Amino acid sequence: MTGFNVTILGNGSAVPTATQHPSSQIVRLSEEQFMIDCGEGAQMQMIKYKIKHRKLNHLFVSHLHGDHYFGLFGLVATFHLFGREESLNIYAPSDLQKLLEHQLRVSKTDLRFNLNFHPLEDYKSTPLFVSGDYEVTIFPLYHRMPTWGVKIRKQDNELRVDKDFVAQYSPSIDQIISIKKGADYMTESGKVLTNKEITLPVRSDKIYVYCSDTVFNEHVIDHVKGADLLYHEATFDSSMQNAAKDKYHSTSVDAATVAKKAGVGKLLLGHYSARFDDLTELLLQARAVFPNTLLSEEGQTYSIK
Amino acid sequence: MTGFNVTILGNGSAVPTATQHPSSQIVRLSEEQFMIDCGEGAQMQMIKYKIKHRKLNHLFVSHLHGDHYFGLFGLVATFHLFGREESLNIYAPSDLQKLLEHQLRVSKTDLRFNLNFHPLEDYKSTPLFVSGDYEVTIFPLYHRMPTWGVKIRKQDNELRVDKDFVAQYSPSIDQIISIKKGADYMTESGKVLTNKEITLPVRSDKIYVYCSDTVFNEHVIDHVKGADLLYHEATFDSSMQNAAKDKYHSTSVDAATVAKKAGVGKLLLGHYSARFDDLTELLLQARAVFPNTLLSEEGQTYSIK
Repeated sequence: MTGFNVTILGNGSAVPTATQHPSSQIVRLSEEQFMIDCGEGAQMQMIKYKIKHRKLNHLFVSHLHGDHYFGLFGLVATFHLFGREESLNIYAPSDLQKLLEHQLRVSKTDLRFNLNFHPLEDYKSTPLFVSGDYEVTIFPLYHRMPTWGVKIRKQDNELRVDKDFVAQYSPSIDQIISIKKGADYMTESGKVLTNKEITLPVRSDKIYVYCSDTVFNEHVIDHVKGADLLYHEATFDSSMQNAAKDKYHSTSVDAATVAKKAGVGKLLLGHYSARFDDLTELLLQARAVFPNTLLSEEGQTYSIK
Repeated sequence: MTGFNVTILGNGSAVPTATQHPSSQIVRLSEEQFMIDCGEGAQMQMIKYKIKHRKLNHLFVSHLHGDHYFGLFGLVATFHLFGREESLNIYAPSDLQKLLEHQLRVSKTDLRFNLNFHPLEDYKSTPLFVSGDYEVTIFPLYHRMPTWGVKIRKQDNELRVDKDFVAQYSPSIDQIISIKKGADYMTESGKVLTNKEITLPVRSDKIYVYCSDTVFNEHVIDHVKGADLLYHEATFDSSMQNAAKDKYHSTSVDAATVAKKAGVGKLLLGHYSARFDDLTELLLQARAVFPNTLLSEEGQTYSIK
């Protein structure tokens, strides 16, 4: 699937279940793929959901609880065995670098590709990276250890062709593509319509935000504002608000409150506790606060629009 | 399933496929469970195949290539989150200890249970452990790094009740149990048959041997002798004999040759390369040398008898 979208490889929490894998997802940035978190089994989930290694050059780890990075060792080993040559950029808390190097020494793996480690602590306001029209930035979450959320902004500079003009003159596909790039249009009678006359201003940027793991905190809301799609952890339901606070996690109502206060387009819940056989209550509690809420599902792809 | 048997959680090699997980298996030692190797996803495979954590107190890692231990971190974390209190014994190459400790520090995991680490280098001839009638020992394999095979011997001291006696006197189940424990038997006419008269000598021990990963080497055969069931790696087929030698792996014919020369009961192949879509040729080549050969299958349980 092309375009700006996210595929969920795992949306469970610390303990896996028969149907839930730990956190991992793939965001498509036009031609590039970006992995957010890499829980155990992420590489097998990629196979299951037919996600290629191709152009997965950037990988982000939100924090160093195992359910967010235990799959990294296997994925890096597989890249190596497949003869990867492209550099891999890992954006993660600094402590992971030495652990990863230690693990490569122990398994006597002499990587054939560059592993560029970018400690998240170094990124106060600069983007992690920019890829074409996409810019990836991070912001602090509030968990039991240093944890970061991630925000991906797609700059949308494409001109929209005016619908009335299309209805009246029926331009060809090639002509529409040219107009989107700034061309004028000549009618059959030889009249020139300037590009400005037949297009509308650029649409707004598209934004995806990922928040896992975090307790409810007003500071998060500022970073989430403007998101078209927000993935937010919902480890507990509202009957467990105290447990959520104690463990620095969110309930689905906390997630919905962030979505509502930030005025996001759509809320996608995840990081479900293994204790729930049925997530309906979690969803209904969230929808009571923020109606446009969905339960994320493993293997599903969600467009950011 | 009770008794002496092994369940395959993974029988792939370094790179997982849609149907193959990396090495891991569970051997049942009467009331105890023993894990051999712990590739990535082993804990999810345990859930899939309904294997409980209960009485899994001993875990062996044959060598430090990632496909044999990347699942250990997640399994240990899950034991911790489930509130495990029993000690866990890990038998592995010594380098794994510091890596495991490093990983626990990074993920800020303060284990609630004792993790007893037993470096395999320390076991020259003594058993790793003894559990009831079961004795677990190791022996060297021949791979690109220090690697050990494992041998599990079940001492069978149970007396067998003579079939002719059973046919003639039809003793009750309770009486048979007593006789197996050494009791004499009194006939309806009051005649005492001594235990020795109505039982047969003890049967031979039952032995399971695990060999992965290794190149063919005559020294292995001595350690495999007497095995009722031998699990042996067969990463390649015989057309790739040179590749097998170069990489210190075996072909299925190498595995069958070991089985034949050691005179084992049954050979179970595993550690298949991801390159094979169909393992039939691998199996047929092995059977031409050693007919009683099976392809191990994920999720299947094999009795050792």
